[in-house]
Amino acid sequence: MSEFEEVTTGLGEECGVFGAYDMDGGDVASTVYYGLFALQHRGQESCGIAVTDTYGKRKVLSKKGLGHVNDVFDRESLTELKGNLGVGHVRYSTAGATRVENAQPLVINYVKGTLAIAHNGNLTNAVELRKELEYTGAIFQTTIDSEVIAYHIARERLNTPTAEIAVRNAMKKIKGAYALVISSPRKMIGARDPWGFKPLCIGKRDNTYLLASESCAIAAVGAEFVRDVKPGEIVTITKNGISSDMSMAIPEEEQARCIFEYIYFARTDSTIDNVNVYHARITAGKALAESYPVEADLVVGVPDSGLVAAKGYSEASGIPYGMAFHKNSYVGRTFIKPTQSERESSVKIKLNVIEEVVKGKRIVMVDDSIVRGTTCANIIKMLKKAGATEVHVRISSPPFLYPCYFGTDVPSNEQLIAHSHTTEQIREMIGADSLGYMEIDKLKDMVGDLKYCDACFTGKYPIEVPNEDVSHAFD
Amino acid sequence: MSEFEEVTTGLGEECGVFGAYDMDGGDVASTVYYGLFALQHRGQESCGIAVTDTYGKRKVLSKKGLGHVNDVFDRESLTELKGNLGVGHVRYSTAGATRVENAQPLVINYVKGTLAIAHNGNLTNAVELRKELEYTGAIFQTTIDSEVIAYHIARERLNTPTAEIAVRNAMKKIKGAYALVISSPRKMIGARDPWGFKPLCIGKRDNTYLLASESCAIAAVGAEFVRDVKPGEIVTITKNGISSDMSMAIPEEEQARCIFEYIYFARTDSTIDNVNVYHARITAGKALAESYPVEADLVVGVPDSGLVAAKGYSEASGIPYGMAFHKNSYVGRTFIKPTQSERESSVKIKLNVIEEVVKGKRIVMVDDSIVRGTTCANIIKMLKKAGATEVHVRISSPPFLYPCYFGTDVPSNEQLIAHSHTTEQIREMIGADSLGYMEIDKLKDMVGDLKYCDACFTGKYPIEVPNEDVSHAFD
Amino acid sequence: MSEFEEVTTGLGEECGVFGAYDMDGGDVASTVYYGLFALQHRGQESCGIAVTDTYGKRKVLSKKGLGHVNDVFDRESLTELKGNLGVGHVRYSTAGATRVENAQPLVINYVKGTLAIAHNGNLTNAVELRKELEYTGAIFQTTIDSEVIAYHIARERLNTPTAEIAVRNAMKKIKGAYALVISSPRKMIGARDPWGFKPLCIGKRDNTYLLASESCAIAAVGAEFVRDVKPGEIVTITKNGISSDMSMAIPEEEQARCIFEYIYFARTDSTIDNVNVYHARITAGKALAESYPVEADLVVGVPDSGLVAAKGYSEASGIPYGMAFHKNSYVGRTFIKPTQSERESSVKIKLNVIEEVVKGKRIVMVDDSIVRGTTCANIIKMLKKAGATEVHVRISSPPFLYPCYFGTDVPSNEQLIAHSHTTEQIREMIGADSLGYMEIDKLKDMVGDLKYCDACFTGKYPIEVPNEDVSHAFD
Amino acid sequence: MSEFEEVTTGLGEECGVFGAYDMDGGDVASTVYYGLFALQHRGQESCGIAVTDTYGKRKVLSKKGLGHVNDVFDRESLTELKGNLGVGHVRYSTAGATRVENAQPLVINYVKGTLAIAHNGNLTNAVELRKELEYTGAIFQTTIDSEVIAYHIARERLNTPTAEIAVRNAMKKIKGAYALVISSPRKMIGARDPWGFKPLCIGKRDNTYLLASESCAIAAVGAEFVRDVKPGEIVTITKNGISSDMSMAIPEEEQARCIFEYIYFARTDSTIDNVNVYHARITAGKALAESYPVEADLVVGVPDSGLVAAKGYSEASGIPYGMAFHKNSYVGRTFIKPTQSERESSVKIKLNVIEEVVKGKRIVMVDDSIVRGTTCANIIKMLKKAGATEVHVRISSPPFLYPCYFGTDVPSNEQLIAHSHTTEQIREMIGADSLGYMEIDKLKDMVGDLKYCDACFTGKYPIEVPNEDVSHAFD
Repeated sequence: MSEFEEVTTGLGEECGVFGAYDMDGGDVASTVYYGLFALQHRGQESCGIAVTDTYGKRKVLSKKGLGHVNDVFDRESLTELKGNLGVGHVRYSTAGATRVENAQPLVINYVKGTLAIAHNGNLTNAVELRKELEYTGAIFQTTIDSEVIAYHIARERLNTPTAEIAVRNAMKKIKGAYALVISSPRKMIGARDPWGFKPLCIGKRDNTYLLASESCAIAAVGAEFVRDVKPGEIVTITKNGISSDMSMAIPEEEQARCIFEYIYFARTDSTIDNVNVYHARITAGKALAESYPVEADLVVGVPDSGLVAAKGYSEASGIPYGMAFHKNSYVGRTFIKPTQSERESSVKIKLNVIEEVVKGKRIVMVDDSIVRGTTCANIIKMLKKAGATEVHVRISSPPFLYPCYFGTDVPSNEQLIAHSHTTEQIREMIGADSLGYMEIDKLKDMVGDLKYCDACFTGKYPIEVPNEDVSHAFD
Repeated sequence: MSEFEEVTTGLGEECGVFGAYDMDGGDVASTVYYGLFALQHRGQESCGIAVTDTYGKRKVLSKKGLGHVNDVFDRESLTELKGNLGVGHVRYSTAGATRVENAQPLVINYVKGTLAIAHNGNLTNAVELRKELEYTGAIFQTTIDSEVIAYHIARERLNTPTAEIAVRNAMKKIKGAYALVISSPRKMIGARDPWGFKPLCIGKRDNTYLLASESCAIAAVGAEFVRDVKPGEIVTITKNGISSDMSMAIPEEEQARCIFEYIYFARTDSTIDNVNVYHARITAGKALAESYPVEADLVVGVPDSGLVAAKGYSEASGIPYGMAFHKNSYVGRTFIKPTQSERESSVKIKLNVIEEVVKGKRIVMVDDSIVRGTTCANIIKMLKKAGATEVHVRISSPPFLYPCYFGTDVPSNEQLIAHSHTTEQIREMIGADSLGYMEIDKLKDMVGDLKYCDACFTGKYPIEVPNEDVSHAFD
Repeated sequence: MSEFEEVTTGLGEECGVFGAYDMDGGDVASTVYYGLFALQHRGQESCGIAVTDTYGKRKVLSKKGLGHVNDVFDRESLTELKGNLGVGHVRYSTAGATRVENAQPLVINYVKGTLAIAHNGNLTNAVELRKELEYTGAIFQTTIDSEVIAYHIARERLNTPTAEIAVRNAMKKIKGAYALVISSPRKMIGARDPWGFKPLCIGKRDNTYLLASESCAIAAVGAEFVRDVKPGEIVTITKNGISSDMSMAIPEEEQARCIFEYIYFARTDSTIDNVNVYHARITAGKALAESYPVEADLVVGVPDSGLVAAKGYSEASGIPYGMAFHKNSYVGRTFIKPTQSERESSVKIKLNVIEEVVKGKRIVMVDDSIVRGTTCANIIKMLKKAGATEVHVRISSPPFLYPCYFGTDVPSNEQLIAHSHTTEQIREMIGADSLGYMEIDKLKDMVGDLKYCDACFTGKYPIEVPNEDVSHAFD
Repeated sequence: MSEFEEVTTGLGEECGVFGAYDMDGGDVASTVYYGLFALQHRGQESCGIAVTDTYGKRKVLSKKGLGHVNDVFDRESLTELKGNLGVGHVRYSTAGATRVENAQPLVINYVKGTLAIAHNGNLTNAVELRKELEYTGAIFQTTIDSEVIAYHIARERLNTPTAEIAVRNAMKKIKGAYALVISSPRKMIGARDPWGFKPLCIGKRDNTYLLASESCAIAAVGAEFVRDVKPGEIVTITKNGISSDMSMAIPEEEQARCIFEYIYFARTDSTIDNVNVYHARITAGKALAESYPVEADLVVGVPDSGLVAAKGYSEASGIPYGMAFHKNSYVGRTFIKPTQSERESSVKIKLNVIEEVVKGKRIVMVDDSIVRGTTCANIIKMLKKAGATEVHVRISSPPFLYPCYFGTDVPSNEQLIAHSHTTEQIREMIGADSLGYMEIDKLKDMVGDLKYCDACFTGKYPIEVPNEDVSHAFD
């Protein structure tokens, strides 16, 4: 799916998290803002920043809202968010409806002071945990999993000497995908689920420590990448530096990183668990070239997410790489989508073919996925109208067939063209001259030795999943 | 204090609550909107409405925001709030800072479904209760007392057959002032603290039951006033009608209604516990005339809250009543107050003297209170400049000397002129020819047999209060 | 018509103008803001301020917008409007649709620099003048008369030595009602049409000269009232003080002040042409008492505009004056009016009867006009429901029967109840026990020797009017 | 200059124009919206749409505002803009300050009805024409050239039988750059200045005729490109089809298209005067490869505008093309730029290097211009930090040395690095290993036989220009 399709189809990532802790006491709100800005692709529905002053009253100030970081924050609000320890979040709703109440970070007062929690991922046992908590007198004000996590940390904290141990104990109860950034009064804690579904990494700039969903956010704020948080690891950052707790880690073979981070979610310039995303996509393109060679004149990618895989296909096949499309970059949150009755189509408005490039050419067109098929069909039609003589479609992921319980918002089966059609049927429906999906076996080429989760393609879930899709249970 | 002074001095009421339950299944959001609109004088900082559909999915939909009901709601949002059981709230922050997170109603999911709670008042044991709850694993996301109340109801509900019994049991723990309107999935519950600090009444329109802080809101939506909820009473409204639980009631002698409701907070057209507010203010004016007679030509009230007491003074004294002021009614939330450096003053901009009326006259000027004294001094100056030969000030409340722990936001002692000055000193400072405050003994004339709280004048608190003012403890 | 009725019926004033010129070079934008704030009752649709710096570049800065002055301006925008000569305007659209383009002041560049013009009134020959101008190559960007006036001034200026002479020459061409405040690069000019339809007065504070539609705006900014601008007078304010040109004046007998300024438009605390508005309304009330005496227990006014006349009726009749209503002062621009299908009515929401006051009483209810009759009928119903035994209605203006061509926005004939019904019929329709309208002959009592226009009651227009109502011709 | 630099440096295009006329009477506002959306790159400061109904009252409805089309229009406002003939505009202020009053289209009433005018370009004799007009009684309400044009059309119209002849006569007076789209009551008129500085083309979709600054906007709304409007041509579109008037055309040798349209302004997917923009940029890249060959491993372009020229360089040199950068596409109007004191830099936030791609490589980096040099220096630093061993900079335009009088907003000389430094000095300042600017002689390769203006590089202006830069004269 190209990025612009995401707007209409609802396939997307759920969250990005960011934390900053300036040991010298400087304000970090603007650093968190720019960090979130670099993670905006991970969630555009709502965002928030919570800061605390570790030297003074340790009062948590926060601001959250619906929309992009650009929309929610202005110079004035960043200035008011005074504090040297900050946590930020961008959200694409999966579990939990689009309500400002569900925006993160969640800020809670509990027995030991105030916590701010930013969470990326989806718990698989959230429903049971909520019920359990309710039976011991808990009340819930949001429908987000972060509230379940917060309760467990708060309750564990009653009987543990430190916040990080409380986090560890909570992790024994919660199942599923999570990358957490937590600010407790004088600590910043990062944690990643034992399977490593969601990414999290550490950065440093002068005396400021950073946690971020992706390394691109570390780079954006002018900091140095330190290392990834490991699956199952809890890192605690205090004035004394970083300490690590690996006691929740599981054997490496059981790890299950979301492969879609490499295919689509993460930014091309990020490196996750030592695998560069650009590199992974080039590899995917090369694999497609091996699996589905074709005689053609030009390889083109559907902007933005198909571009790198197209480059890989080009490099492996020797067919020249070309820029076939101009993408309108002004599509924002408030863009008015054409209605059915208007003769303009969303695809044409967002994407235009450069006739000069494709005229009279046999084209290999690479994209990262096909969801409903309509956008793909429209683009092929545009290419042919512009004079392309053949359009061979290559998709850098296998067909999407199974629901994800770990945080990726997949359309329901009825909307997924691959669910009820063969590849040949799809090829015909979209009007392609040939169609090739990434082979499941070749996914491993993208990420080297890393263990990953490909359940959405195979149905083989790395951990127990609920009987039915509960991702929207609390909406 | 005249109404316009409230803007600058921060003396004000904390909240208004409203509930509507249409047994015929009609949507009530717009009724709640108009009800809150009639209660807007009780709180202008934030507001909210939460509705639920008792016939369908019983999902709670809510919208809250900073500002007036006019600012927060529009036709579209009211239309989206579909449901036949609704709870609304207007807020003037006392405990809890001005944050949208602190807006009410509080909507919580707990073991038995979803509750929406709207609360007017201030708990005196909120700090202890929060601590206690935290020690049993509670987390707090707001700084409002409603969250403490919600926890207690939720916990009690685990072991009680009905929501209303849970409310009763919770009431055994919480101390202080509260008028509550609660929607549980198929019930609307109203409760008033045993002392009756805060008002609450019942209305009915066709098959729709209403709960409201003041009777004026019942009238505004075209309904009939049914009766007041009694101090300590819990009323439960279901399809089977209204049921009442008086088990939390205390002896009538111990009741302690806030006398300031009659002096200033409530609307002139409301009747609370069978005492009409207009009547109470007329009585106050008459009492002032008895206590402080003076030879004068005209009695005038400072708009809006001094007008009725002025009428009372006029009736008792026989001195003609006059309209000395024009008040600018366009002062809204966004009005830009003059800075010290500007030669325009807030008083002149909001209030102008009608020279024609006061020229050459000896004036009795009635207001409901003096906070810092500056506004009063300015008004007297304006009257004299317009030709008034004498200005005799009569204040329809005794001097404000002690902090309120029950929900009235009183300025700190340093700001209260009466705290450090004698009446004679104040008279001189404001430039009045004479000054008389309501005598404490005569307050009882205003409310007949009703038991009331006058602790802010006398320091005699009807219940145990915290050692220090904790009203802002969680901000 | 009571103030709240204006919202629904569209009878209202068209404009207020304000100017300030600080000879010492201080910024005047905030003074203009507060001046307009005091004139807000004259127009709530749009407003604007234009300032120029007479000492520096003499560049005109302006800001205009739809809404109240509160909505359009904030501290920041006032700070940016740097200049010691400022012109402001509030607008209620009569001629010209509600468009931000039609907001005033109109700022124009012409041969001699930049002018800002604020205009209150309606030209009767605007259509012809526009045509004429167009035939000599003029283009129009708005539908407001001010643009016509601006053109004439600009053209006259080509052959005249000063701006004020250009204004005079322009006044020879334009017919109708106008009060003008004009800033030319180093002068502030005020002008009033020869008939004196619209008011305009002069104020002074230290070294700052002011022009304002009403004296209440002079008082609001802490300035001294100097005098009224006379009908037909042009005043020019420069560093050398005020100079006056009376050459456009007409004989006093031909003057034609709008009587509705005294009945309804102007603020009670204003004095226009030496007649105090409060006094005029008291007189009207007394006249009603003389014309229509009745046995009753209480005289009450419909807030806000009926209150003073009610006081007058009370004084003349000896029947006590009472406060029967509470008016909700939070109705703002964004208030959601009830639809027909909602059981709440606009009247109830905005106005409530204080039962205590009216129960068992025979009431005389005074208002300033009846437009459609529905609001009046609703109020009477509310009074009777609250226990009033009789309701005698007295209206402080004669029946509205003829269109106004001078700037008052009168509903069309079909909407005017008086147009097609006798007084007795109206009485029956509104449910009153008796009904009396101000007698036309007694209007003169209100304003002493002043010559006034009563064409809307009598059809006797003081100047030639168009054959048909052209007030909306350009919308 | 890369696109993101434009935000900080102010070099940019001034305007885009769009018109639509549906002969079948359908509403065109949304078509104009999508057309403007495709032209958003030409101006982001303000925009507007004016529509008229050629079948009904022919009243012009318009909406204008500051910001992107996304910000100014919503579904509701498009629905209210009913009419089958519409004109739209996006603006980047050159002449005329950023004020909503200066937003276009300009809507004027004149002797023959109402005109809406959208204008792209800058008149060189605007100052004289304004003076002239003022001396014949004109008044100006904006500081935009469109008002000067409107006056001339209106005045010519007095003595001409048709609007298009009035346009022609007006064109005899106005000098400089303009592409005009005009709606008169029943016609849509397009005109292009005789030199062809600014582009304009015609499209058609069913029975709807379109005019647009660039062909990409024709494609975006699903229409067919018909042809370009020729330099000096006036096209009139009525129910009878398109008619053309070439009487203002000048000899082809004197034409002077803005070469910067091909280098930077226009969208890659547009074709202007039969020269495809993508093709022109590929050619520019090839020319750079010829002029400045270098041994290197990779050619990369600075997004977005350097990408195509980089591709050309790669094709001509045989050095592989690579994607070295990730550009953050969420930078919008409200993005908070880092201050000097923040350690994040605008460049890093907007652009990140993909280390994987550049590490250990000798890089050729292609961009379209260097304005101040700071951004370029920062990008080179980022490349080197990521491991690039050499960075050779190639710029697809000659150094910018002379002011533009035709509508391109060039920074003042002090800000232009090329103005006071040699190429070698600039190379050193930006830290490049080599630096090559497009040779002036090779510009012609980009556009084939077309005659173009390169005055900003050469100082040879195709028409007389004012003695001094007057582009900001009226601000």
